Amino acid sequence: MEAYTPMSVEEFRRAAHETVDWMADFLGSIEQYPVRSQVEPGEIMAQLPDSAPSEAQPLEAIMEDFKQIVLPGVTHWQHPSFFAYFPANSSYPSVLAEMLTATLGAQGMIWQTSPAATEMEQQVMRWLRDMIGLPAEFEGVIQDTASTSTLVALISARERATAFQVNERGFVETERLTVYASSQTHSSIEKGVKIAGFGRQALRQIEVDHEYAMRPDALRRALEADRAAGLVPACVVATIGTTGSTAIDPLAEIAAICKEFGVWLHVDAALAGTAMVLPDLRRFQQGVEHVDSYTFNPHKWMFTNFDCSAYFVRDPATLTRTFEIHPEYLKTKEGTAVNNYRDWGVQLGRRFRALKLWFVIRSYGVSGLQRVIRDHLELAQWVRSEVEASPEFELLAPVPLNTVCLRYRPDPAAPLEEINRLNAEIMERINAGGKAYFTHTKLDGRFTIRFVIGQTYTARRHVEAGWRLLCETARAVKRELG
Amino acid sequence: MEAYTPMSVEEFRRAAHETVDWMADFLGSIEQYPVRSQVEPGEIMAQLPDSAPSEAQPLEAIMEDFKQIVLPGVTHWQHPSFFAYFPANSSYPSVLAEMLTATLGAQGMIWQTSPAATEMEQQVMRWLRDMIGLPAEFEGVIQDTASTSTLVALISARERATAFQVNERGFVETERLTVYASSQTHSSIEKGVKIAGFGRQALRQIEVDHEYAMRPDALRRALEADRAAGLVPACVVATIGTTGSTAIDPLAEIAAICKEFGVWLHVDAALAGTAMVLPDLRRFQQGVEHVDSYTFNPHKWMFTNFDCSAYFVRDPATLTRTFEIHPEYLKTKEGTAVNNYRDWGVQLGRRFRALKLWFVIRSYGVSGLQRVIRDHLELAQWVRSEVEASPEFELLAPVPLNTVCLRYRPDPAAPLEEINRLNAEIMERINAGGKAYFTHTKLDGRFTIRFVIGQTYTARRHVEAGWRLLCETARAVKRELG
Repeated sequence: MEAYTPMSVEEFRRAAHETVDWMADFLGSIEQYPVRSQVEPGEIMAQLPDSAPSEAQPLEAIMEDFKQIVLPGVTHWQHPSFFAYFPANSSYPSVLAEMLTATLGAQGMIWQTSPAATEMEQQVMRWLRDMIGLPAEFEGVIQDTASTSTLVALISARERATAFQVNERGFVETERLTVYASSQTHSSIEKGVKIAGFGRQALRQIEVDHEYAMRPDALRRALEADRAAGLVPACVVATIGTTGSTAIDPLAEIAAICKEFGVWLHVDAALAGTAMVLPDLRRFQQGVEHVDSYTFNPHKWMFTNFDCSAYFVRDPATLTRTFEIHPEYLKTKEGTAVNNYRDWGVQLGRRFRALKLWFVIRSYGVSGLQRVIRDHLELAQWVRSEVEASPEFELLAPVPLNTVCLRYRPDPAAPLEEINRLNAEIMERINAGGKAYFTHTKLDGRFTIRFVIGQTYTARRHVEAGWRLLCETARAVKRELG
Repeated sequence: MEAYTPMSVEEFRRAAHETVDWMADFLGSIEQYPVRSQVEPGEIMAQLPDSAPSEAQPLEAIMEDFKQIVLPGVTHWQHPSFFAYFPANSSYPSVLAEMLTATLGAQGMIWQTSPAATEMEQQVMRWLRDMIGLPAEFEGVIQDTASTSTLVALISARERATAFQVNERGFVETERLTVYASSQTHSSIEKGVKIAGFGRQALRQIEVDHEYAMRPDALRRALEADRAAGLVPACVVATIGTTGSTAIDPLAEIAAICKEFGVWLHVDAALAGTAMVLPDLRRFQQGVEHVDSYTFNPHKWMFTNFDCSAYFVRDPATLTRTFEIHPEYLKTKEGTAVNNYRDWGVQLGRRFRALKLWFVIRSYGVSGLQRVIRDHLELAQWVRSEVEASPEFELLAPVPLNTVCLRYRPDPAAPLEEINRLNAEIMERINAGGKAYFTHTKLDGRFTIRFVIGQTYTARRHVEAGWRLLCETARAVKRELG
């Protein structure tokens, strides 16, 4: 007598083969789908029953609903004309690894719960560290997202600044701690500052220069002022490749200041870290040998399924002292002779995430990754040159990486609000058409269309078509509006 | 000209079919593998190269290494004789859904990034809410783990207790906040208390009764004492099914006290929540209509791949006010007319996790889930009766759910340390043999072997064999030791 399961293993085999054919068909024809889902709010929900079925339903019915109901509601992040946000890439070898990970269903919270998950993570993090030119003394751990990596850095900094007294006694008896990041920094910094109990007011938004990079002189002034006021600067977050415009904070200068003030320096290179596989790009992280922690997301630009955020630290002992717990039911005979990654972050439970990285890095090889990143960088430069050559379009930020910040401004005399509305309309028109997907930011109040080139399957023809679509749509909208 | 990828989509199709065959073969023969990995520390690492390959490697080589190097290092959480920890279950429909999720690679951080991910999550959380008898006004969100769910509850409680002032100004100007949980509570509570800045000393470990359940009178005394001392009680965490022995805190009494003191009440039912699909089990959560938040993990006992922790709240507005951020690059025309789950927790990025729940619930049907859970509960009662009938074994805690806490004590006069060593040796001997996997806790200083029955594929024969193995190994170890 076996346990009740809704299908036998042989029925699973057949269903999984059918699923694979759907997956390959889908990925082979993904360009036929609209990039951004075209549904209206509530449209999917209205097709889902209000309550769970009492009786088992056949897989065929579920797959049919998946195709008919779910798929139209999916925004296709794996579409080669996905130029929005930053990418969240998959790739063929990554999907294969995810299939195995889901099948094994192993836990990597401590060594014994799956030694291979722990030891492969340790080794693959060293591969990554060396691949992007981080100092050899750094050790790495996989977090889920850069939000979590940042939070982990902030809490580590908090504990180092207070000799681990917040962990022990809370904030009440400590001096007031402060955190510094540029005004262009990712929203997860403010969120982390709140979660970790610093309070939003403890976050100093440091002024940026005309290229949207942190001004070291402004950082120094803020640190001096806070210290003079009796506050305790705990952490500086420098960004290599901001989310708005991929601005590059000047790391070497910031690191020197942090050293002088004894402040933890965390680097958020969530997107840009991947580009450091190209040695000549490492000019953007000069000074990295002086930082305390560094994070980048292979799930963004390194073709490895979400979630996979690589977090590196100079001093793992501070990290584990910050997060360790030792309940009886997690004690094993191996003790501290091995890494127990539950003590390297927030969550106890952990998927076997190293496997997909191992599949991806080995399948592409470092040279293959370099090749794709170089292609994306060149395509971004091509878009930049097109924008610069156009009398109607305008570049709004430098293009050090894969993101072109632009707007349509056919009439330089038009007021800002009018130009903003025009560009918002152009973007929405394109997204509603489904042929490409762009998102925006605001730079100095200017509505900025971001053209991000970093999707796994993006080739020159997609970028060229995206640029043509921008030009054509812009002119069409202008004609209509006026 | 296409983008460089290490394989074509047709090569992916072939490789994925081969992977599926390996997956089905593996799951069909999983009983032939040792449950706990038998490798020594460092054994896997030694077989992995020190640096990433420069050139692309063929998939065949990677898969071969997966089988030869990785697999021996995996502890098999999907083995039907996995009786350790709490389960982290997969199931056939869940794996199929994970394949689709990995292929779509969609983000569910805001509605527009994948409307189906958001709307299905909203609806499936309602299914789950109703399936386990939570109040109809609760809304749910999927977190990654119970650690994160607990952290989210603690931070929400912190903000409600301070009128959102810790988020704004930090802890410095507030009164000292306190948190309450039983001494048997999960380690993630202490970890969350530290992360959120309360400090470990703010956590009151409330005394338990002889069944390891929180004593409401002790809770009341602690609350009164803290309030008299000018402290501000912020949160009580009640556990339905503790990790050690599945003890059940008396929720109705605790809820009444929390109401009286105006304290946030969070329920950690990480394992036990699934059992609430059986209406007669809901006696264990009487009073649940008065709680503020509630979490349980479908990735434990509901056959849904990790990670998937269901977090329910009475008042979503408090939750979103605690976690919301509004950067320009995440603003969309839908605004607040839809759920944007980035504001319902810590992380910004989110996988499409609702899909696997939808596959599992529909494939099993509620009645199928009930059937498997009932089987597990009956098997646990069978083990309990065997332990009680044995003159050599001893039951160390009640068995309200699926976990039997036991030890071998052939000589009632033997000193505690000797009995503890004996049981540790028995457990290690079994685990080293690979036929079954048990882990331990300590209850009142007594080394306790936990026999947890909850794996997807566990049937009566596995439980019977596990019990026989315990008896035989115990006697063999006793003979050897003298």
